[in-house]
Amino acid sequence: MTDSKLAQALFAATDAEFRDAAAHIAADAVRTPLLPFPAGNGRSIRLKCENLQPLGSFKIRAGASAVAMFGEGPPAAVATASAGNFAQGLTLAARRRGMAVTVHAPETAARVKVAAMEALGARVVEHPFERWWEILSTRDTGADDGAFVHPVAERGVVLGNGTIGLELAEDWPDLDTLVVPFGGGGLVSGIALALRVLGVPARIIACEAETSTPLAAAFAAGHPVRVERKPSFVDGIGSNSVLEEMWPLLRELVDDVIVVSVAEIRTAVRALATQSHVVAEGAGAAALAAALSPTCGGHNVAAVISGGNIDAARLAEILSETEGGQATSPGRPT
Amino acid sequence: MTDSKLAQALFAATDAEFRDAAAHIAADAVRTPLLPFPAGNGRSIRLKCENLQPLGSFKIRAGASAVAMFGEGPPAAVATASAGNFAQGLTLAARRRGMAVTVHAPETAARVKVAAMEALGARVVEHPFERWWEILSTRDTGADDGAFVHPVAERGVVLGNGTIGLELAEDWPDLDTLVVPFGGGGLVSGIALALRVLGVPARIIACEAETSTPLAAAFAAGHPVRVERKPSFVDGIGSNSVLEEMWPLLRELVDDVIVVSVAEIRTAVRALATQSHVVAEGAGAAALAAALSPTCGGHNVAAVISGGNIDAARLAEILSETEGGQATSPGRPT
Repeated sequence: MTDSKLAQALFAATDAEFRDAAAHIAADAVRTPLLPFPAGNGRSIRLKCENLQPLGSFKIRAGASAVAMFGEGPPAAVATASAGNFAQGLTLAARRRGMAVTVHAPETAARVKVAAMEALGARVVEHPFERWWEILSTRDTGADDGAFVHPVAERGVVLGNGTIGLELAEDWPDLDTLVVPFGGGGLVSGIALALRVLGVPARIIACEAETSTPLAAAFAAGHPVRVERKPSFVDGIGSNSVLEEMWPLLRELVDDVIVVSVAEIRTAVRALATQSHVVAEGAGAAALAAALSPTCGGHNVAAVISGGNIDAARLAEILSETEGGQATSPGRPT
Repeated sequence: MTDSKLAQALFAATDAEFRDAAAHIAADAVRTPLLPFPAGNGRSIRLKCENLQPLGSFKIRAGASAVAMFGEGPPAAVATASAGNFAQGLTLAARRRGMAVTVHAPETAARVKVAAMEALGARVVEHPFERWWEILSTRDTGADDGAFVHPVAERGVVLGNGTIGLELAEDWPDLDTLVVPFGGGGLVSGIALALRVLGVPARIIACEAETSTPLAAAFAAGHPVRVERKPSFVDGIGSNSVLEEMWPLLRELVDDVIVVSVAEIRTAVRALATQSHVVAEGAGAAALAAALSPTCGGHNVAAVISGGNIDAARLAEILSETEGGQATSPGRPT
């Protein structure tokens, strides 16, 4: 599907298409709660807890929806390029339907995610980050390993993500601001499209970690540009560039970008565990960090906590930090 | 209210009374999700996540419901005896309605809970455990500090807890086994009564930590008896005896008692964080530990994760343990 075809198809998506996607994923995904977060200062912040999904991420919606799009004549095998969460969702949904699954993953993927993909029945092939990005961009895995399902720029994926928007509109019609972590843009696009179709006029804010800001750079330049990506524990978002295929959607749907620091994300991971009693990975906590930042306006603010797949040791380390965000031992890794 | 009066009133409670309680607490409590837990072996285990309530515990239901029972002429001040979670719920609900609150707490209460009660506006008075238990048993605080609201043996409390049963019956009518942590019996009694009124014939299992087993001892003896209570991090449940007022309810409503080890509870805390992405305190995790134990039958098993107020340092320590439950450093505290 070319750049403009994807955007055109999605801008034309109807209420009924999102509801069909919701029906497709009902057996695989749960309807996640929207929990109040104690924000103070008169603002109301609520957490859309996608980290409570089976497999710990919203990607089960995307995976199940994408597999359902094959309809009556599904292929015997599928392949994808993913850092982990999407691959897990796709693998679970595809294996339930009898398909073989090959996952192309970057070597930077968290060990816990690679192990989880294999446990679900995927064959995992690891690549240096640059080569992995090439597969993601070209959809050419270099092998005959099945129908390629893109983790982001894929109609079924965006519609599946949009089911979050259906639930938000139902649970909080007065929502005025939505904060969504930006990885490839499939999540924010899907939710924004659904809210638009349903007539909920929320301001759409995408957030990025300071270690990788391709969306902020694309908005600054007026088109996708290449940025540096520094390593951090925030492995679920971040890349070297906005995908050309996604840019027409993002340019139109995203109202603002907030960049948060790794320290702010660590503080948000800690707040989510100690105050809201949920476990979030860095990408998942980024939305709360952005919602709490001084640059985020809005009175009724929903933050999408996109996933919870953080290494236990990393979470333990963050929980051992003092309130001020300082490590209790020297040499704190990022 | 005497022993038999409480039990009689509650055995006569109707569907409508539980639904009234649900209406009373709707502005204070959230409708918690029932999340699937990956159990394997053909059994289906789901988690009723009361740790996701405001204040991190089911007790907001009890507190709000108890305060609402005062009706049109509420007192200016209320007092209670609580280890923390109930006191927090009562304090939040009572302060919202303009009442002063005094909380009598045992010195063993977690620091995080004492700080939270004070932050909510309660005056906290700490006592040695024996003296605190005396207040709990006699309802005599030794001071003129307001209408006493019992955290367990109180009609409004049991009805408020019963709203969990309403939600379970709606979300999972095929539920056949319910596992609930036993602290004072208000939680298990409320849910069991609601399920009975609604005609859901689930087997009711109460669980206790090995460090304090007053309910198992009461069933063995045929009446409440005094047991030893050893200190552990499981501070939300455990006492020296079943309250005489609660025994008629418990004897009738509870089908079985499962005692779990502190090690099993630690493993469950870890599994909840790493697999379900929720933070549970020891008492909250005890229900999952019991549901996973070989002595727990049932195909459709709901475990009530009662609370999430665990010290961050304790959670970090448990997350740092290896899968087998061994500490990574010697001298593991319980």
